[in-house]
Amino acid sequence: MAKVEIIATGNELLSCQVENTTTSFLQNQVLSMGHEITRLVTIGDDKEKIKEVIQEALTRADVVLITGGLGSTPDDLTREALAEAINHPLEFRTELWAKICEFFESRGRQSPPTSIKQAYLPYGATAIPNSVGTAAGIVQPLGNQVIIALPGPPEELREMFLQWVKPFLENHYFSPPAWKNYTLKVFGIGESTVQERLSSILGEWESSGVGISFIPTAGEVHLVLRVPENVDDQSVFAELLDKAQQLLGPDLYGVGEETLPGKVGELLQTKGLTVGVAESCTGGLIGSYITDVSGSSAYFLGGVVAYSNDVKKTLLGVGNQTLACKGAVSPETALEMARGIRRLLNSDIGLATTGIAGPTGAVPGKPVGTVYVGLATPSLSAVKKFFFPGLGRLAVKNLAAKSALDFLRRYLINSLEADRIEEKES
Amino acid sequence: MAKVEIIATGNELLSCQVENTTTSFLQNQVLSMGHEITRLVTIGDDKEKIKEVIQEALTRADVVLITGGLGSTPDDLTREALAEAINHPLEFRTELWAKICEFFESRGRQSPPTSIKQAYLPYGATAIPNSVGTAAGIVQPLGNQVIIALPGPPEELREMFLQWVKPFLENHYFSPPAWKNYTLKVFGIGESTVQERLSSILGEWESSGVGISFIPTAGEVHLVLRVPENVDDQSVFAELLDKAQQLLGPDLYGVGEETLPGKVGELLQTKGLTVGVAESCTGGLIGSYITDVSGSSAYFLGGVVAYSNDVKKTLLGVGNQTLACKGAVSPETALEMARGIRRLLNSDIGLATTGIAGPTGAVPGKPVGTVYVGLATPSLSAVKKFFFPGLGRLAVKNLAAKSALDFLRRYLINSLEADRIEEKES
Repeated sequence: MAKVEIIATGNELLSCQVENTTTSFLQNQVLSMGHEITRLVTIGDDKEKIKEVIQEALTRADVVLITGGLGSTPDDLTREALAEAINHPLEFRTELWAKICEFFESRGRQSPPTSIKQAYLPYGATAIPNSVGTAAGIVQPLGNQVIIALPGPPEELREMFLQWVKPFLENHYFSPPAWKNYTLKVFGIGESTVQERLSSILGEWESSGVGISFIPTAGEVHLVLRVPENVDDQSVFAELLDKAQQLLGPDLYGVGEETLPGKVGELLQTKGLTVGVAESCTGGLIGSYITDVSGSSAYFLGGVVAYSNDVKKTLLGVGNQTLACKGAVSPETALEMARGIRRLLNSDIGLATTGIAGPTGAVPGKPVGTVYVGLATPSLSAVKKFFFPGLGRLAVKNLAAKSALDFLRRYLINSLEADRIEEKES
Repeated sequence: MAKVEIIATGNELLSCQVENTTTSFLQNQVLSMGHEITRLVTIGDDKEKIKEVIQEALTRADVVLITGGLGSTPDDLTREALAEAINHPLEFRTELWAKICEFFESRGRQSPPTSIKQAYLPYGATAIPNSVGTAAGIVQPLGNQVIIALPGPPEELREMFLQWVKPFLENHYFSPPAWKNYTLKVFGIGESTVQERLSSILGEWESSGVGISFIPTAGEVHLVLRVPENVDDQSVFAELLDKAQQLLGPDLYGVGEETLPGKVGELLQTKGLTVGVAESCTGGLIGSYITDVSGSSAYFLGGVVAYSNDVKKTLLGVGNQTLACKGAVSPETALEMARGIRRLLNSDIGLATTGIAGPTGAVPGKPVGTVYVGLATPSLSAVKKFFFPGLGRLAVKNLAAKSALDFLRRYLINSLEADRIEEKES
């Protein structure tokens, strides 16, 4: 397993004028080859700073990948910085100059005088051919280390990495992958609770060389396990994975690439059930999440976005009295909306949200972030209150939509926990 | 102008399990305050390495921003690394611990023992309140420099930066910005067309010291102008800005912080009109976009997600014959859906989408990415075909939803361009 550092150069990356897509491309490539990224750096077009970053990286990494700064304009300084960093002189390469001239001639143009700097390489370096433009890449071996510089334009860099750098690294520097990732995905409990729940096995994992990261993200916690391929006893790991699934119970919604809407869809399809949604505060986001899954038309009939009270009444049949006495944001309204959408669409299940996304709209006893989720089936209806305090409007909508999907998921795996469950539709 | 370095910590960022959205958020914030970003670094959950990066950054930057590693799990090491980097001991803060306990109590839970580490701060540091979670941020002043550490979850970090860090930096460290950003936002034409349209004035801008960036993003192009505050003649710039707005015409939908759903809402509210949406391929996303805007209940009545043909027929009144002869994805269906939702909700305007989001579902003559948008008012109905080839399901849904909003916007500013416009509802 080699240690790789990636250095991206360019003022436009620091000033956010261009999104840095090449670093993540290189990250993914290096990771898929089974090796470790130890640092990512982004730096401006400044020769001294680039030189400094290269020298720092060489104190730590086996492979240093640099992007950008190989063009012909005065702000392209990677070639010079690299030569100075390792104290090798720049040499004129006749064959490179011939290729540059050929590139322009084939386009009916003369090579501009500025492009001559692209024909220089540091002593001991090899050029990486560029089939798209005039900026050759640079491979500079240094004992057991290697520096590789590639041009910044993504289409040039990708081509050159895949055609040339990847096989070069595979042949010369890289060993086969040393570890594998497993991800466990949890909804409804926080990072510290996940940790507490798993406390009896975390130590065992760590002592068997498994790396563990907790990644909290928008109501979910992802637990990423990095398992060395050379662990003698993979069965021990499999056992621990089983144990973790038991400890997390119904809060574990999926593994690997699974998503919450995908999991809900899978469960509905297995059971041959259909669903319809009635959305107030989520405004259509539940429907959008469900339809992010290809094939969702097999179980998703559709929904009603009941933003106004009129729509709640006329389409979903929420009672005048419910709205007047209990309010549009109430367990009663959520229940009636869920029953109403089920009746309206003739679906097996109705799922509904009503709440206060904010920043305005709070009423006494119902602060911003209060959300009710209702669910109705032929045999029961259930409602649960959620509270997402201190968040912006979009975050409340997002957590409300995901919590509704998770409520449905728990119903489908017979683990529903609600504030109120009525056994027969009233 | 202060020099700012941003350090992102987290194994998940190096291993590409999570996209690093917080660094670009912070970049944009710091740049919009008029200051310079000198280096971006991403590093794993390793105390020694985080410590080293902090020490390096302090040799160069005025402000060091760190994200991640403030949670309660063993891989959260920023607090410890920061204390060691500056050689300040960690101290237990009673008031922080009280807040953490309160956080869990308000959720009906006991604070887990692991969260006690979140009550420690380095000597001399101040806590940044976190209204979303238990991880307080850290402000550590060091003479004329300052280190600021924020938690990794984007929703926590954003809130804390905007509420606390931004005003703090404005008051204590930052000088007034040396330039100002103007953003022009365009929908419906590509980057090169925007450039061509503005070709007569781009040179003038550049020679007057204005920096120009084109940022294409999900169907939109943002043109960012960076205007030096000390430009003698601001009136010349104002004149050029006027000219640009003329050259871009109705394709320019907004400026600055304006968004497409926000602009549509503003136009509806000014004209006193209401809208209802009927969504097939977008699955609820248009409704979700509209309701992202606070106050949208003033003009958005609601909608129907008509994913199955049954819902299209029974709720929206799309004809059996239309579905059978023209198909669910057709201009005729889009028109009938738009008229249907208007009738159903009694709104001034009906807006509808039907299309093929893919990856499956293509039929001869209607490849994946084909989308029809319909619009109906008391006096006209109109339909337009869009085509988004070569994209994934989520991208097609997103472009379809935005294109529908833009179609409505153009109607509201009397610049509707449609494939077919019928003057009277048929």
